[in-house]
Amino acid sequence: MAHIALPEGIPGIRGPMTFRPETAGPLNQLVDVLLRGPHPLSPGERELIATYVSVRNDCTYCQTIHGAIAANHLGGNEELVLSVKRDFGKADISDKLKALLMIAGKVQIGGKNVTTEDVDRARQLGATDLEIHDTVLIAAVFCMCNRYVDGLATWAPEDPEFYRQRAALLATNGYAASTPVPAALAAK
Amino acid sequence: MAHIALPEGIPGIRGPMTFRPETAGPLNQLVDVLLRGPHPLSPGERELIATYVSVRNDCTYCQTIHGAIAANHLGGNEELVLSVKRDFGKADISDKLKALLMIAGKVQIGGKNVTTEDVDRARQLGATDLEIHDTVLIAAVFCMCNRYVDGLATWAPEDPEFYRQRAALLATNGYAASTPVPAALAAK
Repeated sequence: MAHIALPEGIPGIRGPMTFRPETAGPLNQLVDVLLRGPHPLSPGERELIATYVSVRNDCTYCQTIHGAIAANHLGGNEELVLSVKRDFGKADISDKLKALLMIAGKVQIGGKNVTTEDVDRARQLGATDLEIHDTVLIAAVFCMCNRYVDGLATWAPEDPEFYRQRAALLATNGYAASTPVPAALAAK
Repeated sequence: MAHIALPEGIPGIRGPMTFRPETAGPLNQLVDVLLRGPHPLSPGERELIATYVSVRNDCTYCQTIHGAIAANHLGGNEELVLSVKRDFGKADISDKLKALLMIAGKVQIGGKNVTTEDVDRARQLGATDLEIHDTVLIAAVFCMCNRYVDGLATWAPEDPEFYRQRAALLATNGYAASTPVPAALAAK
């Protein structure tokens, strides 16, 4: 059971987002810009970064939903997402993305763990300042989301099909558009 | 030196915010709602939660600027802020705020560390669901901000007077209003 009274039957981050629409608005806007805005990294690649950080933070809801969204963006390739979750070094992704995932993993531990060598390596493999910036911020944002979801002990469904269906909606429509706020709760 | 090319002479989070105005907008909006919006906890109390989490994440810029903003809101009481940073259990703050800081500290480690007992204790001392929710989210947001600031190796000034002056501006005008985005950079 969640630590506070959340609307029943709404899983993961959507429970507290429904409870507190004033903060849900900017949170969804931030994630829409980072994961879906115009970018040299594809939405699938950016969702992989979000998924990997959520795995490292052991957040079941976030790693499953963002893994499903990544797979949706990557032509339904759930096997690729699993391989990144297990050991991204052996996954069939670009060397640049591997170097960015290395940076994201350091950010997950703590910002000061990112070294000049980590950044130089990503840059040598073609990463731009924008890609490095956004990798750090995506990793930081998911260190937030994972703590938000688990710090309130929200509910994570077990059925993988739930996540596939929800992922299809989010991949098509985006985050802000997929989290309507009931008027009655918004007036709280 | 920062890991990416940031505008010179702009300290802390403001460097990357100027670099990436598209994400700075929702970030500032989120922090304005959480730390300055209408609330049963005073802005000073909420800034103390932000400061405490930033201390735990060893983020010099965030703990110094938010400590200075907290002091500004608390009638200039820098000694009180220092006592919270050192050992909040002995600080001259309410037992309810101490229970909320305990929850914030658990969130800093990881969301799953928050226990039913932690939440029950805060509730027994008068904390509402909104206060518990916002404590978890403030702690989570600063786990993000601290990683953003340090993951890009931004510059933190050493002069305490810099933080006092900037804090006065932020305490009066808020976050979004105090981070104007140069048009040339916004068009990047």
